[in-house]
Amino acid sequence: MELYGRDLICTQDWTFDELVATLELAARMKRDRFSDRWGAILRNRTFVMFFYNPSVRTRLSFEAGLTELGGHAQFMTPSAGRFKSDKQAGETIEDAAKVMARYAAGIGIRILEDRVPYYGAGDEMLREYAYWAGVPIINMADDRFHPCQALADVMGWAEWLGQGPGRPDYGALRGKKLLLSWGSGALARSWCSVQAAMLIASRFGMNVTMAYPEGYDLDAEVISWTKQNCQRNKADFEVVHDPDSGYDGAHVVYCRNWVSPEAYQDGSLQKQREIERAMAYTGWTTTVERMARTDNAIFTHPMPVDRGSEVTDEVASGSRSAIYDIAENRLHVQKAIMALTMGNL
Amino acid sequence: MELYGRDLICTQDWTFDELVATLELAARMKRDRFSDRWGAILRNRTFVMFFYNPSVRTRLSFEAGLTELGGHAQFMTPSAGRFKSDKQAGETIEDAAKVMARYAAGIGIRILEDRVPYYGAGDEMLREYAYWAGVPIINMADDRFHPCQALADVMGWAEWLGQGPGRPDYGALRGKKLLLSWGSGALARSWCSVQAAMLIASRFGMNVTMAYPEGYDLDAEVISWTKQNCQRNKADFEVVHDPDSGYDGAHVVYCRNWVSPEAYQDGSLQKQREIERAMAYTGWTTTVERMARTDNAIFTHPMPVDRGSEVTDEVASGSRSAIYDIAENRLHVQKAIMALTMGNL
Amino acid sequence: MELYGRDLICTQDWTFDELVATLELAARMKRDRFSDRWGAILRNRTFVMFFYNPSVRTRLSFEAGLTELGGHAQFMTPSAGRFKSDKQAGETIEDAAKVMARYAAGIGIRILEDRVPYYGAGDEMLREYAYWAGVPIINMADDRFHPCQALADVMGWAEWLGQGPGRPDYGALRGKKLLLSWGSGALARSWCSVQAAMLIASRFGMNVTMAYPEGYDLDAEVISWTKQNCQRNKADFEVVHDPDSGYDGAHVVYCRNWVSPEAYQDGSLQKQREIERAMAYTGWTTTVERMARTDNAIFTHPMPVDRGSEVTDEVASGSRSAIYDIAENRLHVQKAIMALTMGNL
Repeated sequence: MELYGRDLICTQDWTFDELVATLELAARMKRDRFSDRWGAILRNRTFVMFFYNPSVRTRLSFEAGLTELGGHAQFMTPSAGRFKSDKQAGETIEDAAKVMARYAAGIGIRILEDRVPYYGAGDEMLREYAYWAGVPIINMADDRFHPCQALADVMGWAEWLGQGPGRPDYGALRGKKLLLSWGSGALARSWCSVQAAMLIASRFGMNVTMAYPEGYDLDAEVISWTKQNCQRNKADFEVVHDPDSGYDGAHVVYCRNWVSPEAYQDGSLQKQREIERAMAYTGWTTTVERMARTDNAIFTHPMPVDRGSEVTDEVASGSRSAIYDIAENRLHVQKAIMALTMGNL
Repeated sequence: MELYGRDLICTQDWTFDELVATLELAARMKRDRFSDRWGAILRNRTFVMFFYNPSVRTRLSFEAGLTELGGHAQFMTPSAGRFKSDKQAGETIEDAAKVMARYAAGIGIRILEDRVPYYGAGDEMLREYAYWAGVPIINMADDRFHPCQALADVMGWAEWLGQGPGRPDYGALRGKKLLLSWGSGALARSWCSVQAAMLIASRFGMNVTMAYPEGYDLDAEVISWTKQNCQRNKADFEVVHDPDSGYDGAHVVYCRNWVSPEAYQDGSLQKQREIERAMAYTGWTTTVERMARTDNAIFTHPMPVDRGSEVTDEVASGSRSAIYDIAENRLHVQKAIMALTMGNL
Repeated sequence: MELYGRDLICTQDWTFDELVATLELAARMKRDRFSDRWGAILRNRTFVMFFYNPSVRTRLSFEAGLTELGGHAQFMTPSAGRFKSDKQAGETIEDAAKVMARYAAGIGIRILEDRVPYYGAGDEMLREYAYWAGVPIINMADDRFHPCQALADVMGWAEWLGQGPGRPDYGALRGKKLLLSWGSGALARSWCSVQAAMLIASRFGMNVTMAYPEGYDLDAEVISWTKQNCQRNKADFEVVHDPDSGYDGAHVVYCRNWVSPEAYQDGSLQKQREIERAMAYTGWTTTVERMARTDNAIFTHPMPVDRGSEVTDEVASGSRSAIYDIAENRLHVQKAIMALTMGNL
């Protein structure tokens, strides 16, 4: 297994052993966060964070991660340069990628559904960067996938179902039930985090139950991969269309708003229309009552949380909420990814 | 005395001994700026600078300070994320603070009067961050206080009245007169710097004279604290309402524009109205003639200086201008604050 | 020769020996990029990048350069502060420069033609910063000059005409022919890069041929300096006004769009008018056919490339394209400049 020089665009692109090796390094880094063993792995090295969409958590965690590895993460947005598009002359992805690769040990890119003309165009752009750049491209969330969030999620679940912070037990996830529920709210959110979650959960042998109103199907290919992952692990995959029954016996509850498959029209995301559509489905909220139907489940969410719509304050700030630990895990898994793909280990 | 883990929101929250210990470390750091003794205190550590309002000097000095302590300061603005407000769904301060605390050794926040619905709301927000975050919150200027500027001010005054750069004599300030004068101009400035100055001057035993046009009263509670500080130090506090007499016998002259107590209306700062109000009071300017009435006073200002309105070029660029030394001191006091509250000393 | 503390605003301000010493250090740094010899030269030091105009390549390369020297480059824009202008009260250049110099080991400034009221005003502003600041001012591109690009260019030409990456042969440039051609396109570009190129080429003994449509003359003073440089080196300088003949026998081909001398009117750059003017001159494009007239010339460009207008994809991505190597050289020459002017060598 050799991860040096590899891109990370979707967890499906990596073998199970590669994912586990990354997660194991992340846990070692978490247990001994400021050890000299990690503090110079990317010394004098640059990581470029290229944000087509803004972000707080992703920027904070990548930039802190580079600092903790001894390097530096540069913040960049496309508006800072002249990039070629249908509407204007400017630099091609070929040129941008080749030049950045001369300066940086790796490049992170975030591009979400509201910056692209159709679903999947953001992920295609990442793969075009990866084609041209001679250094690793790390997906910091695109319109399809969010692999860093997936690894932080599974690490957090394995900590809570295992021996606590920095002591994940991935075997403990096998046969456990993840409820992945659509959540009410006016945020018209991306598919990437929930799709990343179902892909990683099914890789690690969890039973996956999806709950969402009719008309909120996700990416058919991702669902197909998830089913295949479940089959290989002899785990179950099911879909329900009510906001309650999925909670029965769940061990991990994930509730988040997402847009419908009809979100795009005329080459752009129709955010306002999606918000109006979602208004028909109030009450898809994780509550204490619903959590009582579970098998003492933890609550998981990639944040930011839309409190009151996706989840009540009681659950989000409650004793079984894993949200802050998982947010912290973004740092640890990203450090591990960068150390393995870019570092002198 | 233990400063590790402490917030700094207002100098009144810290004991005199704590302030002096911080200032003494700042002076040692200034005398031996690039010593190995300081260069790794925050190695691999992240400080988040969270700017609700933009700033040049504050950003430069904090970011340089982190670099000089071996760490890294991240620049962040609220527009980079989705923060909850009356008008939109988004992340709560609880969630933002708890997550940032997982990544950072400390968090600096700037929020001024034009971003809050009423006077004091910015300071309240800082205290809410401090309540939730498990790491130190450093006030980088809010609508009431500016403690880093206060410490830079008093260090500069004690250097100029003492043995020069890096050799402050705080005893030399006792019984000396600070004139804190309102200044003309169209900048409708915050109260935070002048309030910080009167609080710190009175802690260090200076006599405080305020000079301002009728109708330009400051925060009554801050005035009350200042009077109490003066009483404890057997120092004088007085107010005059003409632009000349306050200069008589002054040792330190501070002249800066500020808004009236009627600046807020309907939940926002009425900047244009305040500029018009100030136009009635031209001539509140520190000039060579007025400086001639002092006891060879130094001129102090938190910068940026509004030359021609608050002070003439002759004074601002003159031989008794302490403004650049005090600007430099921002770096040193902030390094000391961060080393003591966040560092492995 | 002592470069410590020196500004770099135009290559004409430095002696030939100073330029060569900088380039030699840059080549050593390129050959052994992450050596411990360079990794702490600016340890704990801050470089301020002050961008009146945005930039991708310049920011990336300076920020990466500081990271590789162990320091940190801060990103700053004038909109982050209140700077004095004809239209608003604010901070003077004197105050901004003096304060930044207290925090930083050096200051880089970029200001292009669209932010100034007349040609040359940007360069004058840099020299005003240099007058007040007590630390080196590095020109990150102004309306007249771009010395870092010039050094990256000449290093790249000497690598390609010499022994390859990191092995430049500056003697190999003597007597060789540089074609500097105007290029078609709708970008209304600055004069700074092309003027920087002709100045540096003529310092190193190259014959310089300029090719441009009538009416696209450049800065008369820069042309005069170029001619003087050529005379001293017994090299030729010529101008042609057709898009073909200049290629004959060239060793280095440079093709880039630029604005006409009538670009300014009423105190601002008339970009749209310049774009319309340029539309009369389609076909000033470097093609494979034109490259066939040369003496196996390399293609050089400061990037971003306007593919299809300035140069075809075949040439820009072809086997004689030096554009990525030269982009990389920005990093190395800037590291050398900063090490020599600011570092503890």
